[in-house]
Amino acid sequence: MKIILDCDPGHDDAVAIILAASAISPLTIEAITTVAGNVEVEKNTLNALKVCDIIGLDVPVAQGAVRPLVKQPEIAEEIHGESGLDGPNLPATPERKAINQHAVDLIIDKLLTANEKLTLVLTGPLTNIALALIKEPKIKDNIEEIVLMGGGSYGNWTPAAEFNIYVDAEAAKVVFESGVPVRMFGLDITHQVLATDKTVTELKEMDHPVADFIAELFIFFIKAYKDHFDFNGGPVHDACTVAHLMDPAIFSFEHLHIDIETKGEHTYGMTVIDRDRVTGKEPNVCVATGLDENRFWSLFKNAIASYGN
Amino acid sequence: MKIILDCDPGHDDAVAIILAASAISPLTIEAITTVAGNVEVEKNTLNALKVCDIIGLDVPVAQGAVRPLVKQPEIAEEIHGESGLDGPNLPATPERKAINQHAVDLIIDKLLTANEKLTLVLTGPLTNIALALIKEPKIKDNIEEIVLMGGGSYGNWTPAAEFNIYVDAEAAKVVFESGVPVRMFGLDITHQVLATDKTVTELKEMDHPVADFIAELFIFFIKAYKDHFDFNGGPVHDACTVAHLMDPAIFSFEHLHIDIETKGEHTYGMTVIDRDRVTGKEPNVCVATGLDENRFWSLFKNAIASYGN
Amino acid sequence: MKIILDCDPGHDDAVAIILAASAISPLTIEAITTVAGNVEVEKNTLNALKVCDIIGLDVPVAQGAVRPLVKQPEIAEEIHGESGLDGPNLPATPERKAINQHAVDLIIDKLLTANEKLTLVLTGPLTNIALALIKEPKIKDNIEEIVLMGGGSYGNWTPAAEFNIYVDAEAAKVVFESGVPVRMFGLDITHQVLATDKTVTELKEMDHPVADFIAELFIFFIKAYKDHFDFNGGPVHDACTVAHLMDPAIFSFEHLHIDIETKGEHTYGMTVIDRDRVTGKEPNVCVATGLDENRFWSLFKNAIASYGN
Amino acid sequence: MKIILDCDPGHDDAVAIILAASAISPLTIEAITTVAGNVEVEKNTLNALKVCDIIGLDVPVAQGAVRPLVKQPEIAEEIHGESGLDGPNLPATPERKAINQHAVDLIIDKLLTANEKLTLVLTGPLTNIALALIKEPKIKDNIEEIVLMGGGSYGNWTPAAEFNIYVDAEAAKVVFESGVPVRMFGLDITHQVLATDKTVTELKEMDHPVADFIAELFIFFIKAYKDHFDFNGGPVHDACTVAHLMDPAIFSFEHLHIDIETKGEHTYGMTVIDRDRVTGKEPNVCVATGLDENRFWSLFKNAIASYGN
Repeated sequence: MKIILDCDPGHDDAVAIILAASAISPLTIEAITTVAGNVEVEKNTLNALKVCDIIGLDVPVAQGAVRPLVKQPEIAEEIHGESGLDGPNLPATPERKAINQHAVDLIIDKLLTANEKLTLVLTGPLTNIALALIKEPKIKDNIEEIVLMGGGSYGNWTPAAEFNIYVDAEAAKVVFESGVPVRMFGLDITHQVLATDKTVTELKEMDHPVADFIAELFIFFIKAYKDHFDFNGGPVHDACTVAHLMDPAIFSFEHLHIDIETKGEHTYGMTVIDRDRVTGKEPNVCVATGLDENRFWSLFKNAIASYGN
Repeated sequence: MKIILDCDPGHDDAVAIILAASAISPLTIEAITTVAGNVEVEKNTLNALKVCDIIGLDVPVAQGAVRPLVKQPEIAEEIHGESGLDGPNLPATPERKAINQHAVDLIIDKLLTANEKLTLVLTGPLTNIALALIKEPKIKDNIEEIVLMGGGSYGNWTPAAEFNIYVDAEAAKVVFESGVPVRMFGLDITHQVLATDKTVTELKEMDHPVADFIAELFIFFIKAYKDHFDFNGGPVHDACTVAHLMDPAIFSFEHLHIDIETKGEHTYGMTVIDRDRVTGKEPNVCVATGLDENRFWSLFKNAIASYGN
Repeated sequence: MKIILDCDPGHDDAVAIILAASAISPLTIEAITTVAGNVEVEKNTLNALKVCDIIGLDVPVAQGAVRPLVKQPEIAEEIHGESGLDGPNLPATPERKAINQHAVDLIIDKLLTANEKLTLVLTGPLTNIALALIKEPKIKDNIEEIVLMGGGSYGNWTPAAEFNIYVDAEAAKVVFESGVPVRMFGLDITHQVLATDKTVTELKEMDHPVADFIAELFIFFIKAYKDHFDFNGGPVHDACTVAHLMDPAIFSFEHLHIDIETKGEHTYGMTVIDRDRVTGKEPNVCVATGLDENRFWSLFKNAIASYGN
Repeated sequence: MKIILDCDPGHDDAVAIILAASAISPLTIEAITTVAGNVEVEKNTLNALKVCDIIGLDVPVAQGAVRPLVKQPEIAEEIHGESGLDGPNLPATPERKAINQHAVDLIIDKLLTANEKLTLVLTGPLTNIALALIKEPKIKDNIEEIVLMGGGSYGNWTPAAEFNIYVDAEAAKVVFESGVPVRMFGLDITHQVLATDKTVTELKEMDHPVADFIAELFIFFIKAYKDHFDFNGGPVHDACTVAHLMDPAIFSFEHLHIDIETKGEHTYGMTVIDRDRVTGKEPNVCVATGLDENRFWSLFKNAIASYGN
């Protein structure tokens, strides 16, 4: 299965990349694209390249949208640190370089020229894909599925909205209304997948650089979630998307209708999930609603371990 | 404890009245007031009076608002039947009569002249109390607490909104922003308190008219919830408010901030609950979040049984 | 013609009362009711009573809504001064007293008991009438017409909204959607009716207390409009309503559809006038669009002069 | 002065192109770009090419956005006919071809590589420029000014909104909030510039193909405005932008603040003009407020006549 990974690394985005690129992964990463989100897009691009350096991944990395479609930008420095990937001791400048093409155009080119449908994995705000859909609607025919981390029945940035959707709710509206199949991993699920001190210990015991890198990420991330949200663990939100593609038996899903709220006074950026089918609208999203937690962590460990071989 | 019961009976409202008026109840019902909600206010008033007839309750019953503050009216005939209290075989006209005073004025008078604070129990849309608060803000000082059934982290009338709040979200906004202490029983809790066929059987076995009346109500209500929402039981939503006042150990609560959404495209009437305290706003509502189900049903049965003695 | 005058005096409201009560007026004032608006309702009530004292008018004066239906209150002290009627030297306490009934109930009683239809003249926010319509919809049948000052194709409080409508747009929505005939004098017209220094001079020359009182009002009001809006004159907004009822040939009208905007980010409280009939909706408002300015001032002077006889 | 003309021809867009390309024009057209608007973008592109064929204009023509940023598309076939340029007898297929580059990218390339600042003339919905500003914010530094037809103090598509802004209010919000100088020709002005039967007669008398072409456009357009809006003439809206750039003495302007309404129930797509400076916000738009009509038509005739020489 061929994927494009559109992200804003970001601690949990980094884990998503590392899983997808691991030796046990059935996924081929056609490209990594970046978007303004957790921090500014330039930093997210550097972070994506640094992750590629650490795992020796050679794929095109293209920088995308600097800002949301309509709203003013917003970042999550308090969760991911000033660099967007605080924790590990990383060089200021990555060895690899981004290609000289806008992410939106790379996404359009890859989709229009692929000889099979591509799966889009989105772990940041949905700006790039929305722009691609607006600029070249024909790409719809070549998208297998959009698999994204975002939304939920409650929020983390406001009581009603999760960060990725809140940052660019208009982009989310474009994506969810596009007619392309969407699979969504929202907070209801991702908050159940917590990296803890025990996870860090196990990673340290693996005794190789990729495991160490993730351990350092988690140490920072766990503390940030403790300080900011009083969580006992750091939710590896974004990694759920890739984990599902690597092992479809980890999560279970319901096919439901979701509207994106863009007008509300207290609900901007909410994924309004019609869980009880009261609207009568056709389902447009496969929503992750169940989780085999052990199976997730088993996949995770096998994937990281595969780097040590 | 003295209460005013503002309601739109309604099957579960009827149960609330019957619990409050039972021999084991520590509550004194100062008045029953009605509001447009489950069905038109005139029908709700007749229903309230018929319930009083059945249990021999002599309290002032006053009819209130015919319509919401700003929105067009909306009813829930599919759940409560054409009469609003379908199921039992009831006379067309009650013996008791409503008093010739508008509910809003009765509420204001009762509050301004009481020599102790009154508790307002609201089991319909919040129109009457909003009108009272707008017309005579001084009543705030004499309200012990507003205890209401409504809202929740999800909806039943739309994906985001529960019926009572959806019918008059502007009224809810007035009430929740009034500064008066609010205690809320939302769908998260009330959907856990299900009358089932077993409940009906037990009521029938009690062998007295009040138990029979409720049994007939539940038979209709259970079927409506099966047909309309595919529920295995009829949630006795409104009765939770009174049950809590009769036995405060049944439910547990969290003190949280709630905003009422009145502008949203898909979220009108949502109670936006800041469950993780991300807004930094002061809590304004005690939200029921936990339930001792056995204790509820034990209270329920004792209360109904007390009519048979 | 019998009228109820609902107002928030207010310099131009005061002129409206004085015109309506003048010897040449064909109008019978059934009651004066007050509402929170230009300043707090208590001050507006005192001001209405003081105006009655000055002109010797004995009609029931009832105080109404302290606050808008849903929005937080807002006042216009910068235009009307701290008292709401700054300028003339007035006693702190009026001789006359308000009756001990809420304005909303007085309006309802007057309408339900009148043996002919009454005209409602509204020169403040529409809160009282909205409350009356919500509390007792039957009054609709007994309202000849609602004649109001408010709205326009542009605003004075925001670029889109005029003060009276902006203060309580939800109330305006209730009134405009009520089905009762509405006649509207908006800023497009009222900004053409300017009291100037010349008006003041002419009033002083009349040499009697009522003329002097209005002259003092205008001196303050003209300065406030100069300072705040850079106007060369003080628009006697509210007086247009009464002037029209006294002489229907002063203004001309178009019958148009108007919606009240309550959701907009920049347009809350706008009267959205379908002047070119692009919505296809039925007209619901007679909008004043033309003015015979000389005829207005002629009526004005005759009315004031009639107090000197 | 170098311009890019972004348009949706459209009768009045065609006139704008013809004026800009006339022998007396001081403007250099760097490119013509098209956008979904009056009709679908593919038709608008064909129409732009056909206009180039008629006047022998060789500039890059690039097709742009198929749809608005967030809203569903909307067209104005009732005004411009099925082709978007009904009236003249035109070949189905133009001789000239559009270049194989998306309008958004052409705009970005032209701006980033120009050795002087370019003026953007926008006579359709603002989607392309919004997309360019989102994709590459650096272009802001190279835009001399955005000169656009759109908006006004009232609407033609809804009571509050003009077609170009209504079709993509989110794009308008991006443009108006971009910080780039904006000059706006709204309906208040463009409705004063009416092509009439007399204009048609004068064009016919010029006796050359370009004049004939415009005459045929006007015959259709005048009838459409008569039938649909009951106008006595066809407003050459879009031509105002180019006319101003050719002769800055035709129009006068006020520098005002404008917000774009995207949330309103009745006001979506309104340009909320702070004409009386009540918001205290900095002016962001030069709004055309005055017109020397004779001077406009004189320029118009001279420009068309210059094609006959």
